[in-house]
Amino acid sequence: MISDADRVATATLLRVCEPGSLGLSRHVRKVGVAQALADIQAGAQIPDVEAEGLRHRLATASGERDLLTAAAVGARLLCPGDDEWPTALGDLRHRDLDCFGLWVRGRLRLAEATERSVAVVGTRAATDYGVHVAHDLGVGLAERGWSVVSGLAFGIDAAAHRGALAAEGTTVAVLACGVDVPYPPGNRSLYERIADEGLVLSEHPPGAAPQRHRFLVRNRVIAALALGTVVVEMAPRSGAKSTAVHAAYLNRYVMAVPGPVTSAMSVGCHQFMRERPDVVLVTKADEVIEMCGHLGELAEQPTGQVRARDLLGPVVGRVFEGVPVQRPAEVSGIATAAAVSARAAAAALAALESQGLVERVGEGLWVMTALGRKDRRAHRAVQQQQELDWW
Amino acid sequence: MISDADRVATATLLRVCEPGSLGLSRHVRKVGVAQALADIQAGAQIPDVEAEGLRHRLATASGERDLLTAAAVGARLLCPGDDEWPTALGDLRHRDLDCFGLWVRGRLRLAEATERSVAVVGTRAATDYGVHVAHDLGVGLAERGWSVVSGLAFGIDAAAHRGALAAEGTTVAVLACGVDVPYPPGNRSLYERIADEGLVLSEHPPGAAPQRHRFLVRNRVIAALALGTVVVEMAPRSGAKSTAVHAAYLNRYVMAVPGPVTSAMSVGCHQFMRERPDVVLVTKADEVIEMCGHLGELAEQPTGQVRARDLLGPVVGRVFEGVPVQRPAEVSGIATAAAVSARAAAAALAALESQGLVERVGEGLWVMTALGRKDRRAHRAVQQQQELDWW
Repeated sequence: MISDADRVATATLLRVCEPGSLGLSRHVRKVGVAQALADIQAGAQIPDVEAEGLRHRLATASGERDLLTAAAVGARLLCPGDDEWPTALGDLRHRDLDCFGLWVRGRLRLAEATERSVAVVGTRAATDYGVHVAHDLGVGLAERGWSVVSGLAFGIDAAAHRGALAAEGTTVAVLACGVDVPYPPGNRSLYERIADEGLVLSEHPPGAAPQRHRFLVRNRVIAALALGTVVVEMAPRSGAKSTAVHAAYLNRYVMAVPGPVTSAMSVGCHQFMRERPDVVLVTKADEVIEMCGHLGELAEQPTGQVRARDLLGPVVGRVFEGVPVQRPAEVSGIATAAAVSARAAAAALAALESQGLVERVGEGLWVMTALGRKDRRAHRAVQQQQELDWW
Repeated sequence: MISDADRVATATLLRVCEPGSLGLSRHVRKVGVAQALADIQAGAQIPDVEAEGLRHRLATASGERDLLTAAAVGARLLCPGDDEWPTALGDLRHRDLDCFGLWVRGRLRLAEATERSVAVVGTRAATDYGVHVAHDLGVGLAERGWSVVSGLAFGIDAAAHRGALAAEGTTVAVLACGVDVPYPPGNRSLYERIADEGLVLSEHPPGAAPQRHRFLVRNRVIAALALGTVVVEMAPRSGAKSTAVHAAYLNRYVMAVPGPVTSAMSVGCHQFMRERPDVVLVTKADEVIEMCGHLGELAEQPTGQVRARDLLGPVVGRVFEGVPVQRPAEVSGIATAAAVSARAAAAALAALESQGLVERVGEGLWVMTALGRKDRRAHRAVQQQQELDWW
């Protein structure tokens, strides 16, 4: 539990410092926030910190005032030690880039909202292709219960946020300015929707302006919060690269989406994959989840022949595998076999019925159709064939 | 040196057998071509060979007649042991998929034409994007003195051949039918151009029809002839995969071109790169050559800022680095510094002069201009920055 005094001190520190300072990270970790502020006040020399500038800021800083200002716009300050503080952010200390606290707008609890999350980032100058892919990723991740973390920038970031919202999923925007500053202004309505339905975060105090260096420093928070980072489009010297590089340093999964080799906005992604063997090529949400997710969350293999089941999602596929071939079964039994809830099984069975793959026989009993049996045989044959062909 | 009798025997064997037979490969390697024919004649059981079918064919086969038929269309038969037989084909015996001989149309010598060669293959159902990329690769490889090996199929294969021809380079088509059979008929004019300017090859006797299984067996020859295989577009179950898989088994470089994740024709390439860590993502000819080529044939790094030198090839870039900043130097000295021929250096200097990067001072003396110095500094800064950023 963090004391009120410590929370006020953290608010003051966030007003005074620029986050991402190696020297300040080490010093605060050693002496604590309150003592660090006292040291700044006393003019102590802290390595890598421009002490005079901080002291100057401290003279007018007030953590109490910032907490009141934030509360007025529905924002709160989270500190390490709070229940909803994500343990993942602790990894930043291995790089001496500690996050001292986060201003938060939104009703969700941060730790839960980011427990299964993926950062989707990329260039502001996105192509239609990039926007389409980022939106699709946002939709696909949200549909499978994953949150989308990004930076609210134009282009890829905004498309990913929008995709998650379109699928009624969770999305988290990490800003390089105050949580009460809708930047860029063109994304104001998106900002407000995220504050309402997801979470808006920032290390910077209320009212803080976006500054160039703050974007790069902010990127480490995006990388740390998510289990993995996907770069959708980037020019060779894009800022999205810094998020991905932070993710790699933090031992997070790093992924990139390919695109036309004729597109300047895919050059950065291709180069990234060529240079770093740890960067995994991904083409859709399933593959991202297969990477970042828990055992059993596997992407469907694309095959040459499109069969009815290929059009169904992974849960429906599992339910399909749980439907008996001959002896009809109840929904509850099928749900158990597929390891899904009875409600999910019922919905999946309805979808499978509309494809002609299963049929209802009597009250609440289901069995596979001839078409379903054929489809299942074809699916297994393809899987075996693929193993033979490829290895 | 191979005897006339052995050449006739090889022609007969190619008429009788289907290439790509493990048992026949082992048997021929053990007893030689002539004895293998005698064994077939005598009805000997050869493992993995349908002896009766071969014996039946042997009754009407005539190597002499095939050699005459081939000569009438300007084709010759190459056998292992011939000067122009590529040693690379010998690698096929490690997989018991020996190539016993090759019918050849064209004036070039096969070993030389394939010494620095890359196979560019892919789907027949290519998209405009795939055709564009394959053609560009063909052009780029040819411009840098590399040959393009492919299978004369519609789509990617034809585009790669055409690109090489457009750049007045060497291209080699390996057919799954007789060298005198222009298949597919729609590519007849391309076939004729390749026979005229490049080489058309086949293991099958004159007049042989293309048969389904022959395409897959043919693919091992494409893979073996080239130092590496690039797949440009393929559906998940494309035949191009077999060429790439053969290449991997033969310890050749295997490369794939990415594309839009929204394109069905790029799915196979993306899947291939995801499944096999040995498959390298490539986006242009320079990167292919960097992979397959000798030391020093490096692809230019894409950077955010396009500078004059970025538009120049690698040789010109090296010459540029060899031009002194202050004291003018002679062409010969610059050529030595850049490790290129004096002729290449002179051509490169003319190109650099037209970009304003170097200037002529007095008779045969060159020095860098102010613009050139600025460009060089920017280039080095970017290189250093990239190292810092990325690793």
